[in-house]
Amino acid sequence: MQRYVAEFIGTFWLVLGGCGSAVLAAAFPEVGIGLLGVSLAFGLTVLTMAFAIGHISGCHLNPAVSVGLWIGGRFEGRDLLPYVMAQVLGAIAAAGVLFVVASGQPGFAIDPAAAGAFATNGFGTHSPGGYSLVSALVIEVVLTALFLFVILGATDNRAPDGLAPIAIGLCLTLIHLISIPVTNTSVNPARSTGMALFVGGVAVQQLWLFWVAPVVGALLGALSYRWVGQR
Amino acid sequence: MQRYVAEFIGTFWLVLGGCGSAVLAAAFPEVGIGLLGVSLAFGLTVLTMAFAIGHISGCHLNPAVSVGLWIGGRFEGRDLLPYVMAQVLGAIAAAGVLFVVASGQPGFAIDPAAAGAFATNGFGTHSPGGYSLVSALVIEVVLTALFLFVILGATDNRAPDGLAPIAIGLCLTLIHLISIPVTNTSVNPARSTGMALFVGGVAVQQLWLFWVAPVVGALLGALSYRWVGQR
Amino acid sequence: MQRYVAEFIGTFWLVLGGCGSAVLAAAFPEVGIGLLGVSLAFGLTVLTMAFAIGHISGCHLNPAVSVGLWIGGRFEGRDLLPYVMAQVLGAIAAAGVLFVVASGQPGFAIDPAAAGAFATNGFGTHSPGGYSLVSALVIEVVLTALFLFVILGATDNRAPDGLAPIAIGLCLTLIHLISIPVTNTSVNPARSTGMALFVGGVAVQQLWLFWVAPVVGALLGALSYRWVGQR
Amino acid sequence: MQRYVAEFIGTFWLVLGGCGSAVLAAAFPEVGIGLLGVSLAFGLTVLTMAFAIGHISGCHLNPAVSVGLWIGGRFEGRDLLPYVMAQVLGAIAAAGVLFVVASGQPGFAIDPAAAGAFATNGFGTHSPGGYSLVSALVIEVVLTALFLFVILGATDNRAPDGLAPIAIGLCLTLIHLISIPVTNTSVNPARSTGMALFVGGVAVQQLWLFWVAPVVGALLGALSYRWVGQR
Repeated sequence: MQRYVAEFIGTFWLVLGGCGSAVLAAAFPEVGIGLLGVSLAFGLTVLTMAFAIGHISGCHLNPAVSVGLWIGGRFEGRDLLPYVMAQVLGAIAAAGVLFVVASGQPGFAIDPAAAGAFATNGFGTHSPGGYSLVSALVIEVVLTALFLFVILGATDNRAPDGLAPIAIGLCLTLIHLISIPVTNTSVNPARSTGMALFVGGVAVQQLWLFWVAPVVGALLGALSYRWVGQR
Repeated sequence: MQRYVAEFIGTFWLVLGGCGSAVLAAAFPEVGIGLLGVSLAFGLTVLTMAFAIGHISGCHLNPAVSVGLWIGGRFEGRDLLPYVMAQVLGAIAAAGVLFVVASGQPGFAIDPAAAGAFATNGFGTHSPGGYSLVSALVIEVVLTALFLFVILGATDNRAPDGLAPIAIGLCLTLIHLISIPVTNTSVNPARSTGMALFVGGVAVQQLWLFWVAPVVGALLGALSYRWVGQR
Repeated sequence: MQRYVAEFIGTFWLVLGGCGSAVLAAAFPEVGIGLLGVSLAFGLTVLTMAFAIGHISGCHLNPAVSVGLWIGGRFEGRDLLPYVMAQVLGAIAAAGVLFVVASGQPGFAIDPAAAGAFATNGFGTHSPGGYSLVSALVIEVVLTALFLFVILGATDNRAPDGLAPIAIGLCLTLIHLISIPVTNTSVNPARSTGMALFVGGVAVQQLWLFWVAPVVGALLGALSYRWVGQR
Repeated sequence: MQRYVAEFIGTFWLVLGGCGSAVLAAAFPEVGIGLLGVSLAFGLTVLTMAFAIGHISGCHLNPAVSVGLWIGGRFEGRDLLPYVMAQVLGAIAAAGVLFVVASGQPGFAIDPAAAGAFATNGFGTHSPGGYSLVSALVIEVVLTALFLFVILGATDNRAPDGLAPIAIGLCLTLIHLISIPVTNTSVNPARSTGMALFVGGVAVQQLWLFWVAPVVGALLGALSYRWVGQR
């Protein structure tokens, strides 16, 4: 039970920190943190939590990661469903807290028709840069695949000891540095779901892609590392 | 005694570096470091000092952290008062040095009515983004809670050895990436107090929130980790 | 064979992440990541992959690095050719994926006459800042030399254990922070080749410099460390 | 002899990377790295070199650091002079290479009367933000003092093993985040001297402050840590 609560809190942190920095600070006038700051924030949620709860739950914080670790032989299949549930609930809770905080600013409003509204993910007219469905699919599959490849490699017992939180956290930063303009960056179905539920409309209609692509990518990445990393 | 002096110097560094970067460099024309640079500066004060004095005083640099570590069973209650005093004095000293340096620029003036003047914390009309009292309370409580959660987790003896300074320092960076627009980010009553004393007015009137919210958050975070991290 | 595939995947990651951040996110309106974000992205591709495949292939991801490690006595000459081939193929594959993603944005077009088009390297009129051939040669030779010096030093068995991925990755970030305006930063013939093939024109005509200068620099850096680091 | 050459190469790297990023990339139109990127670059020169040559020369790269380590009891006085000479020569060599590269841009010119020209340090009308002599003295003394305090603490044998390069490098980043607007940040007489010699005029006339203040600061920092860190 503590492991599930750890995943809940960890994913709460990922969404509060990553999406929170996007909603509250990215476009602050003149001194806003921009996409670079948001990328750093997402990565640091994982880096900090991996040090804090890596020894408790493994710190997945992401259904695609849990699937990939299961395929990669590092995680028991019977824990998959409760992990995913805890992650999705943690993401929803964070989106709720973020909604309360953001709505305390005069003039706050969410326009569900705006691309990337309230840090939701999207493609086509709902991509921040107007990228197509194909671009979105390709980038989410490829980036999640390499995310899992790095996760499995950095936690291999031949890799340097204790430093996986840095490698994995900064890998998520890198992923965001590349792809926010394309899909607002998901690679994490829980993160996409939590925010979309508070926006509705197109964000929810396009949610399928942010479950399918990360999970497919996670499978490809996990299988790749299984082969490349075999002894 | 050396431990108290270490806390004094460490908190001096936190305020000089974090608030100093905000006052001197954040809005420098065209090439200013922005909120991202300030966030990084705050985190690096803790990261660097945790490597420098972690082995001397534990490097709390923050009354809320000292309270949380006491509740979390990692710190003796009898040291709480001297630690808090050393932290507050260090913060005041840093604010004074910063005042001397900043006042050496032609045209320097502090407008106590301006939100975030001289890097003070505030809410309502004194929030950098105009966020309400409720937003301020929620974000300060939640972020301090997760700060303590990460601190207790990263210093758990099951966590990777020696890397807690990186986890904790970058956690403070993350906290600033999220919340500068809301309250100018405190999560640290000593930091808030030091700067407010040189500004007066509303900054002092609102100081209560930046003692209450971080301490309440620290209690929640410490109790959460005690339960999640129990064996 | 797994080592070659690891180099292919790793160099794919370097080009997808580094050049991808440049093409997709650097100049995004108002909140773009800029040259700082691109510099960070390049470094993080190496940092993350060095943790993931350092124990498999050594994680060179760069023909100049493979040459330098061979001269430095850390890599068998018989592996040089397959490593370089895997690196170049990985870079080409990444450029192709990036082309597919980027072309999904309305209005996408590559102007081969524009300096730095599609993240290609260049000098003279094809340098982002209009720097001369001499500037380009000097900076690429010097930076690759110091890159190899740092690589050999950080992987010396007297250096701190397990942290070379951080040193080497952040060294590539530093190199980009200095030199993107001069040549768009190569120090890596595979990275230059992969992108140039999708642009053609001047990018291909100037490719010779981005093979010659990094390899010469790598030789100088490796020989320097051999002497400085001898016991 | 190898130790002196290591200090020469290391200080060359510090000036080429730190000042190079300032001269070449800080103000690049629209996507320039700004003071944040320059701060990161300075820190990464030290971080990378400390991993590369820490085991050879200790990686001081700075006369004030050598003095502070001598006072702190970590460095033999008889090596002080050759270390300082190697550092100053490395800084001059880097400034020369940088001059060659920078002068390859059409329209390149150095205006010795401009504050911060060619990354020189200064105060009064030669401070980037117009800060007074007193501000410059105070900030350079205080920041160098805390730099030495962190260096001595992070290399104390009770501090985490092998991570001092990260603490010390990022400490230099932090120092720059605070103080570039005040003096263009020195805390390093070799760095100031190397650049000033290529500019002349006021940069050379004001050089005395960037020897006096860092050395005084280093003494204060070293003595502070000696007392705080005693067992």
